[in-house]
Amino acid sequence: MSAFAAVDVIRAKRDGGRLSDEQIDWTIDAYTRGDIAEEQMAALAMAIFLRGMDSGEIARWTGAMIASGERLDLKVSRPTIDKHSTGGVGDKITLPLAPLVAACGAAVPQLSGRGLGHTGGTLDKLESIPGWRAALSTSEIMRQLDDVGAVVCAATSGLAPADKKLYALRDVTSTVESIPLIASSIMSKKIAEGSAGLVLDVKTGSGAFMKTLPQARELARTLVEIGTAHGVATTALITDMNVPLGYAVGNAIEVAESVEVLRGGGPADVVELTVALAREMLALAGLSEVDPAEVLASGRAYETWCRMIAAQGGDPEGALPRPEHVHVVEAPEDGVLSSLDAYSVGVAAWRLGAGRARKEDPVQAAAGVLCLAKPGDEVKAGQPLLELHTDTPEAVPAALAALTDAYSVASEAPAFTPLVLETVRP
Amino acid sequence: MSAFAAVDVIRAKRDGGRLSDEQIDWTIDAYTRGDIAEEQMAALAMAIFLRGMDSGEIARWTGAMIASGERLDLKVSRPTIDKHSTGGVGDKITLPLAPLVAACGAAVPQLSGRGLGHTGGTLDKLESIPGWRAALSTSEIMRQLDDVGAVVCAATSGLAPADKKLYALRDVTSTVESIPLIASSIMSKKIAEGSAGLVLDVKTGSGAFMKTLPQARELARTLVEIGTAHGVATTALITDMNVPLGYAVGNAIEVAESVEVLRGGGPADVVELTVALAREMLALAGLSEVDPAEVLASGRAYETWCRMIAAQGGDPEGALPRPEHVHVVEAPEDGVLSSLDAYSVGVAAWRLGAGRARKEDPVQAAAGVLCLAKPGDEVKAGQPLLELHTDTPEAVPAALAALTDAYSVASEAPAFTPLVLETVRP
Repeated sequence: MSAFAAVDVIRAKRDGGRLSDEQIDWTIDAYTRGDIAEEQMAALAMAIFLRGMDSGEIARWTGAMIASGERLDLKVSRPTIDKHSTGGVGDKITLPLAPLVAACGAAVPQLSGRGLGHTGGTLDKLESIPGWRAALSTSEIMRQLDDVGAVVCAATSGLAPADKKLYALRDVTSTVESIPLIASSIMSKKIAEGSAGLVLDVKTGSGAFMKTLPQARELARTLVEIGTAHGVATTALITDMNVPLGYAVGNAIEVAESVEVLRGGGPADVVELTVALAREMLALAGLSEVDPAEVLASGRAYETWCRMIAAQGGDPEGALPRPEHVHVVEAPEDGVLSSLDAYSVGVAAWRLGAGRARKEDPVQAAAGVLCLAKPGDEVKAGQPLLELHTDTPEAVPAALAALTDAYSVASEAPAFTPLVLETVRP
Repeated sequence: MSAFAAVDVIRAKRDGGRLSDEQIDWTIDAYTRGDIAEEQMAALAMAIFLRGMDSGEIARWTGAMIASGERLDLKVSRPTIDKHSTGGVGDKITLPLAPLVAACGAAVPQLSGRGLGHTGGTLDKLESIPGWRAALSTSEIMRQLDDVGAVVCAATSGLAPADKKLYALRDVTSTVESIPLIASSIMSKKIAEGSAGLVLDVKTGSGAFMKTLPQARELARTLVEIGTAHGVATTALITDMNVPLGYAVGNAIEVAESVEVLRGGGPADVVELTVALAREMLALAGLSEVDPAEVLASGRAYETWCRMIAAQGGDPEGALPRPEHVHVVEAPEDGVLSSLDAYSVGVAAWRLGAGRARKEDPVQAAAGVLCLAKPGDEVKAGQPLLELHTDTPEAVPAALAALTDAYSVASEAPAFTPLVLETVRP
């Protein structure tokens, strides 16, 4: 005899009611065990999409999803701190950030995912390094955290299995873009990883899932509330994602750009965001006396990168794959590049082979878009503006179609937009 | 390659949009064929529940459900006219009505369902007549319509299979009580039966699915709009369902009460509603010159009843089953019976065995509640007020619990409520 009936839980949310703690715990557990059918969870997900959940419900829902699997107990000597980005175009920040924060004295357990649609995935990028492997056991993760201080690897299947099942269902039932469901999905996985602190990079703009600042603000607040409710020190930065981060959008080319940053160079925006996120992470880890900008300049972050890659079988000095075909897009006229749309560039890179439409699709390591100018740069007619990299040149027309309105050249420089828009703390 | 993707249809409705004719046709067809998964239809049903459909969408949705199966082509010499009730407590009106309207010159093809929950089903009631069978072939239906003029039988499985599938899904996903989904479900089955005209008895009050008059009015208008859009002459009566219809609530006892009405006696409310519905049906059938009250009084309706029952194997003069156990509820004090709640009486009859909780459950032919007084009647303390009939006396305490607040005795008679509240025409 069940404690509840699924129809009663669905009806309560359908009618705008609040689900009790007991109803939420029962629902997630019964769904994980298969006692609530997929069609019942689909109806409930749509009711949540349209009726919402309050912060107490969302925290409990997240807790129930964590309880559906194991929660890692990270027994490491250093303070643990993690970062999660809601996904953007050219967002390779994890690559320089994890070794940087480790070099500053914290332990960074970064369990990541693969890309889907127009946003790339950290594991896809790192897999362009010859020999590097994403799958580690829990004991390998612990050992590497102690030895190197940073791990970027695939999430183990035992973490939040309810979320895995629910995410697949939301994908086919148009119930993805719901802040309560997005936030609980992110936080159930991140909290189950066992990190003591978490910094969220909530992106807003054309290349982000949250197109507007109010949406991003609501998601950021919700994420911070969930973390706080579960005893994880959590802050969020809301950052601009109207323009790709850095110049490189793809897999291998983003690794190369990350290495430039770790060696003290690289694009200003990537450096700025890496350092800003590192400062937040170090503050939560109790290491605010360390200056990440200084550690980055010292080369110690790059040393940690090399050890981190090598520990997972990769050759940090090895040659990265090169594309079989490069197509150049030229500037149409003289002037100043006034816009470069993140979403369009993301879609173009995806079509060139850097991303996937379905989660079982492969990605091309060498595919992507290399931007040769960023908004504010002066350009001359005929000057190369974008390089399209691919192993499948038949994909170029579709990528060019995505780029039709992706950029514009004007007589004056565009207004300045800060990269970090807001900080949300508990 | 599909014409549409299910996720796009779900998203459009989720976001409050209007589904196109092509989207609706594709959705119902793909769902019937199994190309839209149950979880996808569940999410769409919840989105329809919360976002609604306009009258054009509802008419098209109904048409697509009709097109998922066969539509009967009733080749009979008389004008065809049908009635459908949205379900109430003690609602045996079909039993006297179908032979009455047939005796007036029309053909009544009444394809009915079984009861679920607190409302009874016409087939369950008729099956308490020894030998009577509900299942007829299409050719048997046609022959009986020509010979007798009235058929009450089970809907054949080929009618609106999409509705059958969707109804089962709605039942487990809390998406039943949606006017667009209720109306399209009713009308797809009724229009597929091939009747040229249809009168709807939309019930409102505690014992009805539509608890309030505005809800009932919206459902009635929606039903009439759908019928009209599909070329079926349709009107609706909105009738009160706060008090059980007649004195008998159950199966065999409702047949007995119907026979009283057909023989010129019976409860005033049952006679009133039977004649009112017959008048509407005869008007739509072009037979408004016939007075159904006169035909009822003449005994010709009873003759048609006997022929209708005999044509389906039943013995119209045969003894009806009697309950093994009768429990009497007495009036608590002297006064006037001021209320008798239809829902409570319906639940009590259901618990006594007259109804079913799941569609595969059996029902008891002899179970039910016999009311010995109706609101407005004077009662004396200790006088029998209700008889609970059952073959399973262990069910009596649960039935009595349902009746706790079902009736009250006061010093004055309650205000008069008309039985037929409104008529809705195209």
